[in-house]
Amino acid sequence: MHIQTGTPIHHQMDLRKEQFLAVRATTDRLVKPLYTEDYVIQASEDVSPVKWHLGHTTWFFEAFMLVPHQEGYEWYEPKLDGLFNSYYITHGHPFEKKHRGWLSRPTVEQVKAYREHVEAHVLQLINEADEEKLQELEPILEVGIHHEQQHQELLLMDIKYNFSVNPLRPVYHPLDAATDRVVDEIHTVQPGQEWLFFEGGKTMMGWEEQGFAYDNEKPRHTVWLEDYSLAARPVTNGEYIAFMEDGGYQKGEYWLAAGWDTVQKMAWTHPLYWEQKQDGTWHSFTLSGMKPVHPDQPVCHISYYEADAFARWAGKRLPTEAEWEHAFRHHSQSGHFAELETYHPTSVYQKEKDGSYKAFGDVWEWTQSPYTPYPGNKPFDGVLGEYNAKFMCNAYVLRGGSCVTPQTHIRETYRNFFAPDKRWAFSGFRLAGDGKC
Amino acid sequence: MHIQTGTPIHHQMDLRKEQFLAVRATTDRLVKPLYTEDYVIQASEDVSPVKWHLGHTTWFFEAFMLVPHQEGYEWYEPKLDGLFNSYYITHGHPFEKKHRGWLSRPTVEQVKAYREHVEAHVLQLINEADEEKLQELEPILEVGIHHEQQHQELLLMDIKYNFSVNPLRPVYHPLDAATDRVVDEIHTVQPGQEWLFFEGGKTMMGWEEQGFAYDNEKPRHTVWLEDYSLAARPVTNGEYIAFMEDGGYQKGEYWLAAGWDTVQKMAWTHPLYWEQKQDGTWHSFTLSGMKPVHPDQPVCHISYYEADAFARWAGKRLPTEAEWEHAFRHHSQSGHFAELETYHPTSVYQKEKDGSYKAFGDVWEWTQSPYTPYPGNKPFDGVLGEYNAKFMCNAYVLRGGSCVTPQTHIRETYRNFFAPDKRWAFSGFRLAGDGKC
Amino acid sequence: MHIQTGTPIHHQMDLRKEQFLAVRATTDRLVKPLYTEDYVIQASEDVSPVKWHLGHTTWFFEAFMLVPHQEGYEWYEPKLDGLFNSYYITHGHPFEKKHRGWLSRPTVEQVKAYREHVEAHVLQLINEADEEKLQELEPILEVGIHHEQQHQELLLMDIKYNFSVNPLRPVYHPLDAATDRVVDEIHTVQPGQEWLFFEGGKTMMGWEEQGFAYDNEKPRHTVWLEDYSLAARPVTNGEYIAFMEDGGYQKGEYWLAAGWDTVQKMAWTHPLYWEQKQDGTWHSFTLSGMKPVHPDQPVCHISYYEADAFARWAGKRLPTEAEWEHAFRHHSQSGHFAELETYHPTSVYQKEKDGSYKAFGDVWEWTQSPYTPYPGNKPFDGVLGEYNAKFMCNAYVLRGGSCVTPQTHIRETYRNFFAPDKRWAFSGFRLAGDGKC
Amino acid sequence: MHIQTGTPIHHQMDLRKEQFLAVRATTDRLVKPLYTEDYVIQASEDVSPVKWHLGHTTWFFEAFMLVPHQEGYEWYEPKLDGLFNSYYITHGHPFEKKHRGWLSRPTVEQVKAYREHVEAHVLQLINEADEEKLQELEPILEVGIHHEQQHQELLLMDIKYNFSVNPLRPVYHPLDAATDRVVDEIHTVQPGQEWLFFEGGKTMMGWEEQGFAYDNEKPRHTVWLEDYSLAARPVTNGEYIAFMEDGGYQKGEYWLAAGWDTVQKMAWTHPLYWEQKQDGTWHSFTLSGMKPVHPDQPVCHISYYEADAFARWAGKRLPTEAEWEHAFRHHSQSGHFAELETYHPTSVYQKEKDGSYKAFGDVWEWTQSPYTPYPGNKPFDGVLGEYNAKFMCNAYVLRGGSCVTPQTHIRETYRNFFAPDKRWAFSGFRLAGDGKC
Repeated sequence: MHIQTGTPIHHQMDLRKEQFLAVRATTDRLVKPLYTEDYVIQASEDVSPVKWHLGHTTWFFEAFMLVPHQEGYEWYEPKLDGLFNSYYITHGHPFEKKHRGWLSRPTVEQVKAYREHVEAHVLQLINEADEEKLQELEPILEVGIHHEQQHQELLLMDIKYNFSVNPLRPVYHPLDAATDRVVDEIHTVQPGQEWLFFEGGKTMMGWEEQGFAYDNEKPRHTVWLEDYSLAARPVTNGEYIAFMEDGGYQKGEYWLAAGWDTVQKMAWTHPLYWEQKQDGTWHSFTLSGMKPVHPDQPVCHISYYEADAFARWAGKRLPTEAEWEHAFRHHSQSGHFAELETYHPTSVYQKEKDGSYKAFGDVWEWTQSPYTPYPGNKPFDGVLGEYNAKFMCNAYVLRGGSCVTPQTHIRETYRNFFAPDKRWAFSGFRLAGDGKC
Repeated sequence: MHIQTGTPIHHQMDLRKEQFLAVRATTDRLVKPLYTEDYVIQASEDVSPVKWHLGHTTWFFEAFMLVPHQEGYEWYEPKLDGLFNSYYITHGHPFEKKHRGWLSRPTVEQVKAYREHVEAHVLQLINEADEEKLQELEPILEVGIHHEQQHQELLLMDIKYNFSVNPLRPVYHPLDAATDRVVDEIHTVQPGQEWLFFEGGKTMMGWEEQGFAYDNEKPRHTVWLEDYSLAARPVTNGEYIAFMEDGGYQKGEYWLAAGWDTVQKMAWTHPLYWEQKQDGTWHSFTLSGMKPVHPDQPVCHISYYEADAFARWAGKRLPTEAEWEHAFRHHSQSGHFAELETYHPTSVYQKEKDGSYKAFGDVWEWTQSPYTPYPGNKPFDGVLGEYNAKFMCNAYVLRGGSCVTPQTHIRETYRNFFAPDKRWAFSGFRLAGDGKC
Repeated sequence: MHIQTGTPIHHQMDLRKEQFLAVRATTDRLVKPLYTEDYVIQASEDVSPVKWHLGHTTWFFEAFMLVPHQEGYEWYEPKLDGLFNSYYITHGHPFEKKHRGWLSRPTVEQVKAYREHVEAHVLQLINEADEEKLQELEPILEVGIHHEQQHQELLLMDIKYNFSVNPLRPVYHPLDAATDRVVDEIHTVQPGQEWLFFEGGKTMMGWEEQGFAYDNEKPRHTVWLEDYSLAARPVTNGEYIAFMEDGGYQKGEYWLAAGWDTVQKMAWTHPLYWEQKQDGTWHSFTLSGMKPVHPDQPVCHISYYEADAFARWAGKRLPTEAEWEHAFRHHSQSGHFAELETYHPTSVYQKEKDGSYKAFGDVWEWTQSPYTPYPGNKPFDGVLGEYNAKFMCNAYVLRGGSCVTPQTHIRETYRNFFAPDKRWAFSGFRLAGDGKC
Repeated sequence: MHIQTGTPIHHQMDLRKEQFLAVRATTDRLVKPLYTEDYVIQASEDVSPVKWHLGHTTWFFEAFMLVPHQEGYEWYEPKLDGLFNSYYITHGHPFEKKHRGWLSRPTVEQVKAYREHVEAHVLQLINEADEEKLQELEPILEVGIHHEQQHQELLLMDIKYNFSVNPLRPVYHPLDAATDRVVDEIHTVQPGQEWLFFEGGKTMMGWEEQGFAYDNEKPRHTVWLEDYSLAARPVTNGEYIAFMEDGGYQKGEYWLAAGWDTVQKMAWTHPLYWEQKQDGTWHSFTLSGMKPVHPDQPVCHISYYEADAFARWAGKRLPTEAEWEHAFRHHSQSGHFAELETYHPTSVYQKEKDGSYKAFGDVWEWTQSPYTPYPGNKPFDGVLGEYNAKFMCNAYVLRGGSCVTPQTHIRETYRNFFAPDKRWAFSGFRLAGDGKC
């Protein structure tokens, strides 16, 4: 999706405009199956109402593109500034996150009108801009597009969580029987675990290519790795059930102290969204309703604590993010992403052309690396400096994207992150080991 | 609204049917100004979403009338039983109250379809019932009607609270300029405080008339009163502001220990919904938007703690509920109720025909009486025994009804009640004193 | 213990001095079995460290007697004023109650020196006072004595609670085998439940006798009672176990809504201090260590919620405080009090000379009466107005005294009170019913 | 303190015994100034009572040395096992940490008897051991000695915290006027900030020397550093006050999101223990009472969040632990440690013989490195595997030791760690920058 150096700016901007319209259309498509009521609710402090996401991704363009760069532009409605500002305190006073679900107004229709208004003004601004202005606008438009893609994933995560607490078990995305069967047929052969070995030494990580990357992926810098091995594929539901059946959630010795506290306090005994039927079989709430837990699918909706405990139980460890990036830097970033509209991880056994398993897509993979700035890292300029930098604390990095990530959003250097007790992301993990496993 | 003894049951039921249809129509009218989104939200654990009220008042007829009394009737949707059961644990497992705002489904349209379905079946059941069946149904229908009236008041309370937390300040009920002016003109003369004196002695309280009353108003029983005085009217905003300006919220000596803890913890410095403008004037959020606080209107949205602290500051006390009932038993229960569609207290100076001020309507009045069972009290039979009895703990009685109470719902023996820290009811108070004041 | 009218003030004061010295000596005796460490701890927000009680009961005399009434007296140590002020906010700024256990200083020895200092000055002040001064001092000294007696009961309650959380199960008061046997032998015959019937009508309650009473017991005033019955004795452990075995703690229908919330949240399944052995027998932590639960002893360490739930289960109710006072006004207030140094309820079958069971002593008895002011009640003057009045909210009255109450402290009009979820008082209950049972 | 390779085991053990006795004597000396009451209290969930530290450091030898390695040894008192087990869940069931202050028993005297008993048995066990047994015992004894040293620092931290909440401001360690003056005179010249430059490249970190180190310091491994600069000394109180006066605690832009939440929630406006006098000067609670804040002393009792915010405000950053270790690996680990018995940081301007400032001692220095395992790290075997590994989550590493750290306890590879909101350690920080500053 990136643009060659030397492309004239107005050609670049033609492409950006296309991307902008495509991204906006995707967002519209994602919310189509929802009733008005579904846009309003917020069933935990982690998630946001759908209409908030719609407003916020629009506000992003208004606050960072229109207001500062379009002469004479006035806020569509000044009070929306606080309501749709997520966390930019150098910009203003965000409405308290945990109470976003308290707000019935603006209505969905009003938010959509807001979207249209801002969209139209963005296009107008671009169309009327001279070369100099275009130079100024291009990087903002680009980050705004990536920002909206991030929220597309959050939309799917949050809809799933919000629906999951409802005893009526709403279905967001009905799968027809045919699709269900196809998904099942993928899982025909379950090979044993295979290991990939990588030689250590001096290597580079982080972004230095052309094209967009977040500030947190830069600069490209030197790291030293010891020899290591990575599992050829993520841990499956079947393997995870073995951990559960071996008393994994009852034995403190596998757990970080903070993880064990969480297990006790939250009474965790299985991954998020799982339920055990009376016959002992496990089912999971999905965006297509309750589905049997398939043993060959990667385990998903797992916290860092659970991933780490499983690894200790298995006598292994989680990879570092440097190891992960080094191992899969040259994999294609095709795979099972949101565009397939499955919204549930499928098989751990999808392969690259060269016969290796796909590393990208399906589930995000926890690494053992706390989310910290790279050496020499510089946050974005201005208000956008708050985009990533201030969250570099008490979180762990995940790599590779998932079945709800837009494919064009992912990169081999992409750093996702969550606090170690969060489970509503489509998060799994693969094992790692020192030297040759 | 009550029916003469001796009226044949099918005539009684004709009247009940009329009342039933009228009450349902009133509920429909009350929610008319709302957008779909407004039905979903729940901005505190005390309030419920509008669509929950619509569902619950319907469930009441389904659970207590159709299911047990209509042969062959099947639940409209069994999962709604838990969702719309408020707190009847002898009936089933209510969904947790504080999370009612997490549920986008059933949608508003689905809830309305549920209402129509149950309404139609109620009418059908009545129409097809023989005399014996009608005898059985009549008291259930009657309590269901009163129950829905209670929820009409809650609807208005909850809409107000839910709207109040939104910085957009939504307006539920726009007042035209004319109405505003009329409301203002009411307040022309502010007489000084007047006192009404009552002789004590043996007297009776509680309900024994024909017609409906809740179980908590019975039996009529003897109480002994000392001589006492009641203020002729409730405390006004102007008087309350004097308390505030005298440091009422800063001086612990006026407060119950539990009240003082609440003041500190909640950082209360004024009634709920009030805001002070930069020029020092007070304004209040109302169902018609922000309005200036009128000094002659009764103070409203006051907790028991605040009413009690004001009374101590004033060197007086609150009335007991026996005193209140004894004093105003023979007042007409006309006055400022929900039917006027003002939804905000107006004047403390409205008078009865005999020249005395109206006691009923405008604001509920806190009494100093904890909410306890009357001697010899018997709760309703069966599941409905949970209606009132189990809440007789850590609450205080309020009397008289308010501008959001349906007029046909109130009685001289009517006992409303709230925990002493609650303020979202339309609650004010009048002063009392021992002997002659 | 009260003094005849007309007794010259210096004779009155001689008696008060004696009482003062006796009460102080009793406090000293009560803390004798403790190690220094035992004086420091505070195992819940409800209890206070022993050394705090010693300091506070001394501060009471310093703050209310010496400082205002002895010319030239200076605070022993001004910083102790805040530390030992319990809750008198019109006097100063009390140190936060829940953190009293954070303070190692003043040490026990320092607190004892403080006690001696204040005691000596109190005696000196009295000895040097003229008649007029004595008139002024006498009521303060009297209330100070009663105040310290209240804290003697709290001392025993708090020591018991503080010891109970320690896995080493410390023993405060070892019982020799002989005493243990005697306690057992008391319980030889268990008669069935007997009922006492009382005719209703106009009656008086509250204090008007000579001698001391708290402000909350006044004025004596008229109340109207309906005919009622009281159980001849409190509910026993055996009867309470029957309730437990019938699923009392699992069936919401017996409980007040607030009680049921508490049962769930606290996971209550039995009275405070009880433990079930593997053989199914119940034992209870006592001030003499773990002891078997005797079926004929009154159930103790019961919350209002549990008492009320038991009563509903039994098809009865709790008495009102007016009924209790009316029924037992003329009973002797002898019985099982702290002077016997058993510190555990013994038998429900102790009898008055006239053959009736003793009503006073052994366990406090919950009534169904919220703790409210009597009609015409006036709190103590000045700072002591905070003694009782501000706690008249969300609490219920208990009557009759217990095995840890000083006998000379109790009166037929004495009103003890606790919030309905508290269990560390020696609290039980008896059943009541309307009319003849 | 470490022992040459090849030393016969019984010679090694002679040295260990000496160290053991010395460490135990030091603990005894540290608690000498305390009253019995001071041993009992626990003023926050982070700290422990002094008597718990005495018991726990003894239990460590009993549980890990006597019980498994002395034939026929029986627990001194089995119930103490749970009480004095800190967090070893593979060993047993630790008593809940936050309630350690609820326990008056065992008394201080009983804990001291327990200490003596275990000490005697440890010595006896060593004295009677053959060569093979000695080989087995030596590493356990060694870790037990280091463990007790860690608790000596905790003792001083916890005593300080426990005393700080007491309005009587207890003094643990009175300083005479002479000492106070000396401490003052140290601070004569305040040079400007100086920077030390270090070239990056491939380097090694972690422990591989002879002698003891914790498992978390191993293995020695390769890291890659970019060129960097470190401030020659920690940030001073004077510099920190400049940050405060510039509104540092009011401007969210300097803070990590989690830090800003903490600032708001805890209402932080200055370092822990500081108080501002009416004349605007700052004073700090110390183990020698309230003392003026000296502008040239290193700022202390600072959370990671505050250190990080200061660094952003100053346009710099915190060092990584690799940078810190690389920079100061060859500094002498002499300096201002607990042995000086000052228990308060003195000057930032103490120098090495070569003219550079001392890096070790005075205050622990926060690094920006989350506390994670080194590549290839292996926890201690068995139960002691819980010593460090399970805490490697949501904490940051501090380096260099402080004025309450035993000097013989520190190493250039020593990794201390705390959660980023903790402030009761003697924690300060120095600035770092990329390249040359």
